[in-house]
Amino acid sequence: MDGPSSRLRFSLSIFFFSFVLFFVFIPSWCRPLDEPKLLRQKQLFPSSKSRIRKTKTHPSSQAVRHPLDPLTAEEIIRVRSILRSHPPFGSSLPPIHSLSLHEPEKADVLAWKKGDPLPPRRAFVLALSDGRTHELVVDLGSGRVAAHSVESGSGYPLLTMEDLTAALQVPFTSAEFNESIRARGLPMSNVTCVPPSTGWYGRAVEEQRRVIKIQCFDQEGTSNYYMRPLEGLTMTVDIDRREIVEFSDSGRGIPIPKSTGTEYRYGSVEEEEGRDRVPPLKPISMEQPDGPSFTVEDGHIVKWANWEFHLRADHRAGLVISRARVRDPRSGALRSVMYKGFVSELFVPYMDPDEGWYFKTYMDAGEYGMGVSAMSLVLLSDCPRNAYYMDGTFAASDGTPYVQSNMICLFERYAGDISWRHSESFISGSKIRESRPKVTLVARMASSTGSYDYIFDWEFQTDGLIRVKVGLSGMLMVKGAPFANMKNVPGEYEMTGPLVSENVIGVVHNHFMTFHLDMDIDGPNNSFVDVRLEKEATPPGRSPRKSYLKAKRRVARTEGDAKIKLKLYDPSEFHVVNPSRLSRLGNPSGYKVVPGGNAASLLDLDDPPQLRNAFTNNQIWVTRYNRSEQWAGGLLAYQSRGDDTLATWSERNRPIEDRDIVLWYTLGVHHIPCQEDFPVMPTVQLSFDLKPVNFFDSNPILHASPNFEKDLPVCSMAASS
Amino acid sequence: MDGPSSRLRFSLSIFFFSFVLFFVFIPSWCRPLDEPKLLRQKQLFPSSKSRIRKTKTHPSSQAVRHPLDPLTAEEIIRVRSILRSHPPFGSSLPPIHSLSLHEPEKADVLAWKKGDPLPPRRAFVLALSDGRTHELVVDLGSGRVAAHSVESGSGYPLLTMEDLTAALQVPFTSAEFNESIRARGLPMSNVTCVPPSTGWYGRAVEEQRRVIKIQCFDQEGTSNYYMRPLEGLTMTVDIDRREIVEFSDSGRGIPIPKSTGTEYRYGSVEEEEGRDRVPPLKPISMEQPDGPSFTVEDGHIVKWANWEFHLRADHRAGLVISRARVRDPRSGALRSVMYKGFVSELFVPYMDPDEGWYFKTYMDAGEYGMGVSAMSLVLLSDCPRNAYYMDGTFAASDGTPYVQSNMICLFERYAGDISWRHSESFISGSKIRESRPKVTLVARMASSTGSYDYIFDWEFQTDGLIRVKVGLSGMLMVKGAPFANMKNVPGEYEMTGPLVSENVIGVVHNHFMTFHLDMDIDGPNNSFVDVRLEKEATPPGRSPRKSYLKAKRRVARTEGDAKIKLKLYDPSEFHVVNPSRLSRLGNPSGYKVVPGGNAASLLDLDDPPQLRNAFTNNQIWVTRYNRSEQWAGGLLAYQSRGDDTLATWSERNRPIEDRDIVLWYTLGVHHIPCQEDFPVMPTVQLSFDLKPVNFFDSNPILHASPNFEKDLPVCSMAASS
Repeated sequence: MDGPSSRLRFSLSIFFFSFVLFFVFIPSWCRPLDEPKLLRQKQLFPSSKSRIRKTKTHPSSQAVRHPLDPLTAEEIIRVRSILRSHPPFGSSLPPIHSLSLHEPEKADVLAWKKGDPLPPRRAFVLALSDGRTHELVVDLGSGRVAAHSVESGSGYPLLTMEDLTAALQVPFTSAEFNESIRARGLPMSNVTCVPPSTGWYGRAVEEQRRVIKIQCFDQEGTSNYYMRPLEGLTMTVDIDRREIVEFSDSGRGIPIPKSTGTEYRYGSVEEEEGRDRVPPLKPISMEQPDGPSFTVEDGHIVKWANWEFHLRADHRAGLVISRARVRDPRSGALRSVMYKGFVSELFVPYMDPDEGWYFKTYMDAGEYGMGVSAMSLVLLSDCPRNAYYMDGTFAASDGTPYVQSNMICLFERYAGDISWRHSESFISGSKIRESRPKVTLVARMASSTGSYDYIFDWEFQTDGLIRVKVGLSGMLMVKGAPFANMKNVPGEYEMTGPLVSENVIGVVHNHFMTFHLDMDIDGPNNSFVDVRLEKEATPPGRSPRKSYLKAKRRVARTEGDAKIKLKLYDPSEFHVVNPSRLSRLGNPSGYKVVPGGNAASLLDLDDPPQLRNAFTNNQIWVTRYNRSEQWAGGLLAYQSRGDDTLATWSERNRPIEDRDIVLWYTLGVHHIPCQEDFPVMPTVQLSFDLKPVNFFDSNPILHASPNFEKDLPVCSMAASS
Repeated sequence: MDGPSSRLRFSLSIFFFSFVLFFVFIPSWCRPLDEPKLLRQKQLFPSSKSRIRKTKTHPSSQAVRHPLDPLTAEEIIRVRSILRSHPPFGSSLPPIHSLSLHEPEKADVLAWKKGDPLPPRRAFVLALSDGRTHELVVDLGSGRVAAHSVESGSGYPLLTMEDLTAALQVPFTSAEFNESIRARGLPMSNVTCVPPSTGWYGRAVEEQRRVIKIQCFDQEGTSNYYMRPLEGLTMTVDIDRREIVEFSDSGRGIPIPKSTGTEYRYGSVEEEEGRDRVPPLKPISMEQPDGPSFTVEDGHIVKWANWEFHLRADHRAGLVISRARVRDPRSGALRSVMYKGFVSELFVPYMDPDEGWYFKTYMDAGEYGMGVSAMSLVLLSDCPRNAYYMDGTFAASDGTPYVQSNMICLFERYAGDISWRHSESFISGSKIRESRPKVTLVARMASSTGSYDYIFDWEFQTDGLIRVKVGLSGMLMVKGAPFANMKNVPGEYEMTGPLVSENVIGVVHNHFMTFHLDMDIDGPNNSFVDVRLEKEATPPGRSPRKSYLKAKRRVARTEGDAKIKLKLYDPSEFHVVNPSRLSRLGNPSGYKVVPGGNAASLLDLDDPPQLRNAFTNNQIWVTRYNRSEQWAGGLLAYQSRGDDTLATWSERNRPIEDRDIVLWYTLGVHHIPCQEDFPVMPTVQLSFDLKPVNFFDSNPILHASPNFEKDLPVCSMAASS
C-alpha cells in the first residue's frame, strides 16, 4: 500500500483517534492474506530468545470445527470471490464494511454435536454501493448470495480503513488548512490529524452523505500528540467525495500545549531533573510449572474446571463468548448459562457544546469496531506469562482477509483471593479453619479506539459466577486552553473540565458499555424476575421491631416491565430464571445480574446523541430474542438517527415471560479528569457479575481443595540475561 | 480454664455464633500470657517440614518504637498491675472489657520523628463494675490512672469471653430448657448453643441490665451445626446474674434440618454417590523468588514502593492503618494521605419480625470486636504463599495479655491486571504498544463473627489509589422451616427468605460496614467538596447539542452539608482536598472516595435498630475531627440506644471547611440468600476506593517498567512430597 507520505509533500502520519479502530496492514503484526497458506507463523513478542511458554497452537489450517467458529481466511477469500461474481455488483466489488460469520439459527447450533456435519457456513456482509448500504448473506456451500437487500433506515456501517485514510488526506490539499497551520507557526511535518466520527445532529451538511470530522495535533517532541491539540481547528469532510464541506478555525489564539511530560514510551521517558524515582519492585509472577488447567480445543472451545464455552474474535464486538455452560457437580451434566455474551455498543459523550467538541459522542463498536481496534496484546504486561493467545481473522474493505495477532488472551488467575472460608471458634473441642483459594479463568482483549484503551475481561469462577470487567486506560481527549493555571482562567471562560496540565483541559465525559447477554438458563426459554426488597411495617404488637424488608418476586410479562433504572432506595435483585427447571427444593434455576460501576446518562432524551444511544436510557433491559437484534445502537450506527436501537425494539413491548430472552446491561462511568490522568490514565476498572441463584442445589465448590505446600512450585530467579 | 463439660452432665460444646467473636484461650493458637517472655515462638501452620517462606520476624521482645504501636504484652501486664492498685477498684479488678492503646494526640504523633523519645504511653480501659462502665486512661510512665470516669449514657462495652461462656452455661441448668430439648427428642450431648446479642428495643427486660439471647442447634453429624437450628427456642439471659429472664419455645413442630450436605471440612466431606467431582486445578502460585518488595520496620511500619504506613492489630477494629503516606515522584517527599483508617462499625439487621429473629441486628465491632474475632489466617489458602504475618496482642477480661497469632497478613499481589496501557495505531511509522503490569500491596484480616466471615483487605496501588475490600463468606443464619419444598409452603406462612435446603430458610438481611477514614491530605486541615454533575441546556443557536453535563464544586461548610445519600440520577464526585495546597496548575490537592458496593438501609428511621445504627442513614458523612469519635455506633454499642452515634455527633453541625475532618463511608449489601450459599457461602466481595485527584502533578507511575522475561522466575514443580 502506498503511504500517504509518498504522495504528499510533508511527512504525514496518519493516526487514529480516541474511539478509532485500526485496520492494520502493517506487515510485522497484521497483514492482508491472499491465500490462507500465507497465514504467517505466530511470532510471539518479544520474539527472540523468549522463554515465554508458547501455549498457543495455531489452529492447523484454520479448520472449521464448530458452527460458531469465525470465518477463516480461506472462507473470507471465498466470500470475496462469490461477491465478485454477484451480478448486482458487476465486476467491481464495492467497499466491504463488514464481513463476518452469519451465525446459524440458535436451534441448529443447540442441536449440533461434535462429529455432526456443520450447519451451512454463511457470511454476513455489509457493503456500501452508491451511497447505500447493502446487506448480504453469502452461502459458502452453494457459492451463492443467499440474500441481498438494501437498507432503508438511517445510518451507515462501520468505517473502513480506506474511509479513514482517505478522509485524513483531504485537509492537506486545502489552502485554508495550509494557511491555518502556517498561521500557527507550525511546520506541516509536525502535524498529525485524527478522524473523529461526526455523530448525527440533523444538520443539512450531514444529509445524504457520509461525513467525518478531522482535527489535528502537533506531534513534535512526543509520541503523545493527543496532549497537543490545535484547538479550534475542525473540518468536516465528505468521506466519499473526499472534500472539506465545513472548515472552522477559531482557536488560533490558544497556545499549543508543550510536549514536556507527555511522553510515555518505555525508554523514551526522559529523566527530569530532581525526579525521585520510585524504586522498582522485585519480580512477581503467577506461575504454573505444570501448565494451565484449561484447554482450547479445535481452536475455540475453552474447557476449564467446570466451565466450557466457545471463544472467538469478532471485528465489531471484539471478544464473543458463546454457549457458556457449567458442569453441575451433582449430575455431571453441562448446563447452559449463556448462549452469547459480548459488548454490543459503547457510548462516549463529551460534555462540551463548542463547535470543535459538541459532536464527540462516540459509538465505538458501531462506528469503528472493538475487534478491529483490538491490537496485539503486549506479552507479559497486558497478560501474565501463563497466558494463551488467540488471533482474530477479519476482512479488509477489499474483501481480503488479514490477521489481528494475539488479539485475545486467556489465562488462569490466582490473585490471593478466597473462594470461601470459615473459621470456627470453640472452647471444648478442636478448631476449624477452612479456606479455599480462588482461581479463575480470564479471557481478555484490549481495544484501542484511538486515544482510549478499553480492557475487556470475562472472568469465570468455579462457583459459577461470571465477572465482566472493563478497564479504561490510554489518553484523555483534551482541549487546548488559553491559560496555564487556574488562577488565570478568564471570567467569561466556561470550564468544561479541569485543567490537567498547562493549557490542557480534560473535558468531562461519560463511558457507557452496553452488554448483550443472551442468557439461556438451562435452555432458551427463561423469565426475568424483579426480586424487589420492600419495607414492611410490623403489625402492632407483633414484634419489638417496627420495620423489616421483604423480598417480592415480580415476573416481567413484557419488555415494558423490564426497563430498569437502578434505585438505591428501591432496591431489587434481577434474576433470569428458567421457570420450568425447578431445583430439588422447588426454586427456579437462575442467574442474577449484579450491577456495578453504575452511572446513568443525564442528557436530554431528545438530544440527538441520546436518541441515537437510547439504549442507555435504562441500565437494564430485557428483549425477546431476535437474532437480528445484536447491536444496541443499531446495525448501522454511523450517522444513525436512533431508529434501530434497543429502545426502539423494546417499544414493541413483546411478551418475554417464559420465552427466549436477552438481557442487556450497561456499565457506566462519569469521568471528570484529573492531573493523574495526564499524560496517560491509570486504569479505572468497572465490573458487573452474572451470579448463579438457585442454579446449583448447593455451593458447587464445597469440595474444592485448599492449597498445600507440596503442590506449589519451586522457583528461583532466572540466570542473569 | 475449666471447661463447662466438667461441670455439666452432658458434653457441652460452647460455640459462638454468627456475629460472635471469639475470645480465645486455646493453647495451640492463642494463649494467655503471664509474662511477656512466654510469648511463644510463632508456629507457622502447617508447622512441620514447611517450605513456606517465614517472612515474619517476630518483633524482638515487642519493643515499642512508634507512638501508635499497640500495647505490648508487657505493657498490658503493667496496666493490669496499675489498675489492681487503683483505689476505687479496691483489691479486686473488675472485668476488663477493653484495654488498648490510648493514642497520643494527633499533633504529638505528627510531630514525632524516628529517634525522638516516644510520647507518654497510655492505655484506654473500659471496665464494668457494679453494672456501670468505667472509662480509664492509664499512664504507663507514671504508673498511675490519669483519668477515670463513669459513663452516663446508654450501652455497655464489648462483651468478654467470660460474658459469653457464662451466658452459654445458663440454659443447661434450666428445667424448662432441659424439658424443651427432651421434647425434641435430642440427647443433650448433641446440643450446641450460641449467644446472639440482644440489641435494644425499649423492653422492660432490657432495662438496667446486660442481657443476651441464647439459641441452640443440633450438632450431630456435622461441624456445621449452624444449618441445624432448634427453631423457636430462644432464651434471654441476664449476663451478670446468670439467669434466664425470658424463655420462648414456639417451634417444637418444626423439624430440625438434617445434617446431610452440611459438612465443609476438607477430608470430612463425604463423597456422595454419583457425585461428579470437578477435576482439580493444576497448581498456580504468585512467586517472588527474590522476596517481597516491602519491609516491615520496627514491627509495624510498612514500606512498599511509594507507600509507607503504620499497621497494627486492634481488638475492636481489627486492622488499623495509620499515617498512610505516599511519596511524591517529583519532590521525593512523603505526603500525608490518611491519618487513620479502619472499619468502625458493622450493622447486620435480619429481616424477620419473629420472636426468635427480630433482635438480630448485630453491631459486630462494638458488640463482639472485629479484632478478637479475627482468627489466625490459614496459610496458603487465606493468603498467598508470599505473605508476611502479623500477630495481635490483646487483653483478656482479667487484664492478662494473649496473642492472636497470624491475625493479619501482608502480601504483594499480581493478578495479571494492567496499571496503564496504550496501543497506538499508525500507518507511516513505528508501532507503539505500551503496557504496565499492576502490582499492589494487600493488608488482610478475616474476622469470624460467629457464623459469618468478613475478609477485610486494604490494597495499596502505586498510582496512589487505596482500595478497601470486604469479602463476605462463612455460614448463613438460617431459620428452621416446617416444609422441605417450596410447593409445600403453607398459605399463611410468611417467607422471610428463600428456602436454601430442606427445612432451611436463608433469612434476608443486610450488611453495612462503616469505615472511619481520617483523611489528612497534605496535612490535617482539609475540606470536603461535592463535585456535582449537573445537566445544562445549551442556549439556542449555540450548539447542535441540546444538553451537556457540567461539574460544579460545592465546598461543605458544616457537617450538615456533607450528609450524602448517593443518587444515580444526581451524581457527584466526593473530594477531600487541602485548600492550602495548590498544584502547579492551581488545583487543590485531593483524594476522592469512589463509592462501590452500595445498599441503603431502608428501615424506619425510628425503628430501634436503625436508631442505634443511624450512621447508616447516609452513605457518606464528614465530621470535625474529634479523637473520641471513633466508633460510628458509639463507644458503648452493646444495648445502646443510639445516643452516641455518628448521627448524633453530626447534629452539632460543626464547621468542617478547612478543618481537620474525618470522612465516613458505608459499604452495604442486601443479601437475599440462595441455594449456592448452603452450607457455606462463596465469597461476595464489595469495595470502595480512595483515589488521588489532583494530588499528584501527573500520573505518578508514568515511569513504571513493563515486565521482562529475563526478570521472571524459573519454576518447577516441587519434588513429590
